[in-house]
Amino acid sequence: MENRRPWEKLKDIIEAHDADRVKAYMDGLQAEEIVACVSHIDHEDRLKLLRLLTPEDAAVIIEDIPEVQAVDILEDLEATKAAAIITAMSSDDQADLLTELEEQDAEAIISEMKPVEAENVRKLIEYDADCAGGVMITEFLAYDENDTVGMVVADLREKSEEYESYNIHYIYITSNDKFIGVLRMRDLLLSPLSTPLSQITVRNPLSLEDSASLETLISFFDTNDFYGVPVVDQDEVLVGVVLRKDVREAEAELANKELLETQGIVGGEELRTMPVLLRSRRRLSWLSVNILLNILAASIIAIYQETLTAVIALAVFLPVISDMSGCSGNQAVAVSLRELSLGVVKPFEIFRVLLQEIYVGLINGLVLGLLIGTAAWLWQSNVYLGLVVGGALAINTVVAVSIGGTLPLFLKKMNVDPALASGPILTTVTDMLGFFLALTFAGLMLSHT
Amino acid sequence: MENRRPWEKLKDIIEAHDADRVKAYMDGLQAEEIVACVSHIDHEDRLKLLRLLTPEDAAVIIEDIPEVQAVDILEDLEATKAAAIITAMSSDDQADLLTELEEQDAEAIISEMKPVEAENVRKLIEYDADCAGGVMITEFLAYDENDTVGMVVADLREKSEEYESYNIHYIYITSNDKFIGVLRMRDLLLSPLSTPLSQITVRNPLSLEDSASLETLISFFDTNDFYGVPVVDQDEVLVGVVLRKDVREAEAELANKELLETQGIVGGEELRTMPVLLRSRRRLSWLSVNILLNILAASIIAIYQETLTAVIALAVFLPVISDMSGCSGNQAVAVSLRELSLGVVKPFEIFRVLLQEIYVGLINGLVLGLLIGTAAWLWQSNVYLGLVVGGALAINTVVAVSIGGTLPLFLKKMNVDPALASGPILTTVTDMLGFFLALTFAGLMLSHT
Repeated sequence: MENRRPWEKLKDIIEAHDADRVKAYMDGLQAEEIVACVSHIDHEDRLKLLRLLTPEDAAVIIEDIPEVQAVDILEDLEATKAAAIITAMSSDDQADLLTELEEQDAEAIISEMKPVEAENVRKLIEYDADCAGGVMITEFLAYDENDTVGMVVADLREKSEEYESYNIHYIYITSNDKFIGVLRMRDLLLSPLSTPLSQITVRNPLSLEDSASLETLISFFDTNDFYGVPVVDQDEVLVGVVLRKDVREAEAELANKELLETQGIVGGEELRTMPVLLRSRRRLSWLSVNILLNILAASIIAIYQETLTAVIALAVFLPVISDMSGCSGNQAVAVSLRELSLGVVKPFEIFRVLLQEIYVGLINGLVLGLLIGTAAWLWQSNVYLGLVVGGALAINTVVAVSIGGTLPLFLKKMNVDPALASGPILTTVTDMLGFFLALTFAGLMLSHT
Repeated sequence: MENRRPWEKLKDIIEAHDADRVKAYMDGLQAEEIVACVSHIDHEDRLKLLRLLTPEDAAVIIEDIPEVQAVDILEDLEATKAAAIITAMSSDDQADLLTELEEQDAEAIISEMKPVEAENVRKLIEYDADCAGGVMITEFLAYDENDTVGMVVADLREKSEEYESYNIHYIYITSNDKFIGVLRMRDLLLSPLSTPLSQITVRNPLSLEDSASLETLISFFDTNDFYGVPVVDQDEVLVGVVLRKDVREAEAELANKELLETQGIVGGEELRTMPVLLRSRRRLSWLSVNILLNILAASIIAIYQETLTAVIALAVFLPVISDMSGCSGNQAVAVSLRELSLGVVKPFEIFRVLLQEIYVGLINGLVLGLLIGTAAWLWQSNVYLGLVVGGALAINTVVAVSIGGTLPLFLKKMNVDPALASGPILTTVTDMLGFFLALTFAGLMLSHT
């Protein structure tokens, strides 16, 4: 019995409906184990688990597990329970989850929240997820410049329990509601209690507008060694704080989304706990576009059927040319995606990237062409076949890396997601050209011999 | 003239050799602009730029730009200048860079550093980059439990300039050099100056060993809402602090590395500023393995040449079957990589993943098989061709998603990098099977008609 997996134990404990045992068991697990456990029990057991826990404990689990799972659970929980769990979360996580829910589910949950909380979260979900307003938290400390150090210290003491969950590293200073300056915790240490805040406020503080983009945020935290940055609205009123950790998290999510999209996972996320039909449909939406493009490319072969019948050995090499050109092109695509996200290349620099790729393409095309050309020559003892196959792959490699390197920049410029669209477009063009080159060269070879 | 790019202006300013102008210009740039500027000037100009700046200003640039660029610059700068720049950086960045340098270059730079700094960094570079020791910083505040609040406040005041660059949110308490507890800045606020630290220390603090893995770190910060975690060695001596932001950064880097590796960029990083021959060689190392595997797969076609000559229309569909099976399989690979990094699936769960993929494979295989089968049938008015092509793709899709889903788990279990190796293995197997199925079915069809 000792060898049972943690999720098997969890299942038994859930079945026993003993809230204390469930809490004790979950408290003993690390975040990673929680993720594994929740993934391995079925949907009904997940609902039961969260119902058995206090909203605060349930919130910890909801924050740990992947977002798509959390959304599924919240949609199927009773709205009052879901509202209590969401209330226990930090404001940025609240907004993230609620925007992912079906609109009517989100509305049902919000209407069960306390009016103040509900109003706050309604404002937050208005923001785009990838801007400062969408990433910020609204738990921060702000005082008027006419307050004194003593008043702040007294307030900190009095509400210490409420502030416990805040990430307090700065105190923000306002004047007539407008944001005017910053105070660090340690500045409070060194000042007499009667000092008005206005005397020790660091003025002209850095801040960002709530509409600032994720790229701006990443750049800001790269330049500045701050824990967080205050966010103001158009009227310079302080509306929230973006924490460095949340920007890093958003950045890591973006990289993961790109990874999945380049491999044809539409939407940038799939977990195997999602319903089979949904997973199948999302994958098919990309595959079915691809197969049409593939048939289009293969139609080139159909046109040259006679040539192919005459040089049937070529049929062996057509898939190799198609696949290798795709590989070379996708390498260039990946480098361009990376350079775009690092900011070392801008969408308008298509020509510069083209030049940089052509060199690599010429070298790699030559090497790969020689390899496959030699293989074809030796196999059929026919040097012409080697020239046809090797020449076609060499030229096609140059074209593939050129397109692969520049296409993501072009798509980005056109506001099309380069991670999702580059691959299919690239392989269609290079397949068509590769087949055309090989079969045309073969035709010339036939008339020559 | 106003329309010139920032890097063109920077080039002119560097040529003028005016240190003040260079500093003024760089100070006006955001991190993202610095990255773009440095990428667009040539290597010699980069060296000139850093020589013109103070070590502190140069360090900011080195920290902003991609690591491979920073390494190139530091290797070619004079060792004294490089040592001064590295000294101005935080300890974790120092170690990261020095481990990436050629060993003799790193040694030359370290020997130019102050003995204390040099000794510190020598210890740090001993650590693996992906463990707590490799990610931690060594700038932290530690006091003995017998010190008083007053002594700490006096020390903070006195060395405020030195501590300015520290990320101070906690104070660590030791007893006979062993780590025993934590104090938050705000706890100091609320205690009389004469209080011994031992009275207000929070005991049994969480800490990690310096050998803790990146996964452990990620899991730790998912579970705990701390800004940083103290790191101890085997003797419980405090050796550093791992900050949450550095763990997030390491996580984002890992995702980016995986993205590049799945597309065949060996080493997980390539920038177009790297020398053409290096880029070409690294890409080729993956492509040349791939082309051999491709030729191996295509040899199946060679075996069935006679069948293919008899049903030449099939040649049109072989590349489609090869490409589409690869696409379906790679989708499953991407989902497995993602689930592995999220921790929702463990390497031993191959059978569970297999079951989950087979369902998707059956549906998608049926749909794709029908699509291509219908296309083949209509084109040649030959229902048998449709059955051959559609049947081969349908079966091959099931196999491709099964292999794609399980292979990354198997490779991970074998300690082979799944991001790099899954793709080539997958496509080789599915190509071979796809060609075999289509040509065998065609052979049966021929004997049937």
